[in-house]
Amino acid sequence: MSDCLFCKIIAGEIPSTKVYEDQDVVAFLDISPVNKGHTLVVPKSHAENFLVVSEDVSAKAFGAAQKVAKAVLAATGAHGFNLHVNNGHVSGQVVDHLHIHIIPRFEGDGLEHWPKMTYGSGEMWEVGEKIKKSINQRNDMPRDATL
Amino acid sequence: MSDCLFCKIIAGEIPSTKVYEDQDVVAFLDISPVNKGHTLVVPKSHAENFLVVSEDVSAKAFGAAQKVAKAVLAATGAHGFNLHVNNGHVSGQVVDHLHIHIIPRFEGDGLEHWPKMTYGSGEMWEVGEKIKKSINQRNDMPRDATL
Repeated sequence: MSDCLFCKIIAGEIPSTKVYEDQDVVAFLDISPVNKGHTLVVPKSHAENFLVVSEDVSAKAFGAAQKVAKAVLAATGAHGFNLHVNNGHVSGQVVDHLHIHIIPRFEGDGLEHWPKMTYGSGEMWEVGEKIKKSINQRNDMPRDATL
Repeated sequence: MSDCLFCKIIAGEIPSTKVYEDQDVVAFLDISPVNKGHTLVVPKSHAENFLVVSEDVSAKAFGAAQKVAKAVLAATGAHGFNLHVNNGHVSGQVVDHLHIHIIPRFEGDGLEHWPKMTYGSGEMWEVGEKIKKSINQRNDMPRDATL
């Protein structure tokens, strides 16, 4: 898309620190990293977010993400990483072109996960039923889905 | 694996609030949710984490995650979601069986992303070179990788 920042990076119209590229996927460093080595893995074809990407493109992007993550660990000496996809502006998605964050993690880096809450009595079951019902109403579920 | 919590849930030996199941993947509610409706998407075959899962199983898990995410949004009224995979104990991975977190997000839920840092002069380029070098040294890169 002509006004998409990541499409412009993919086209080479805007510079980036690319670390990986194949026919379908590119990866470059996030310029505002959570930890140094924070990398974005981006399918070349424009898809606004994870909800609308094709299964094929999604599989290629996450396949490349596995390879890139191994290299990020080797290059940074990190002991682990977080893989994040933000979907929708409320989630923190800033660029409307699907991208997978790989954030290297180090002992003592001080990054904490979000706090947890608890369900009231019976509430988890109710929420589960709603999700299950929504899944069963969809027509894009595989025919062997058993719930 | 006999001592794996998620393998036991998949086998039905430990109860869960399942919302989705197909031949290869199951999804159930996280009992300690960040937001209500927080769901875990889990491949049935045991893989310790994202680094070691096969491309085929990974593709199936993220394919199912897309379907489940749509249902989580519809059921909870969330406006977006975060998809998280923690890889390694330093990253917050608690159960050593690959699982994809889908965390529904709501306006004003107060969840903030981790703070960003900045690279020193030339540092981003150096980090990128290291990652690129590590990628080029690996033998599991596709032959059309161009960097």
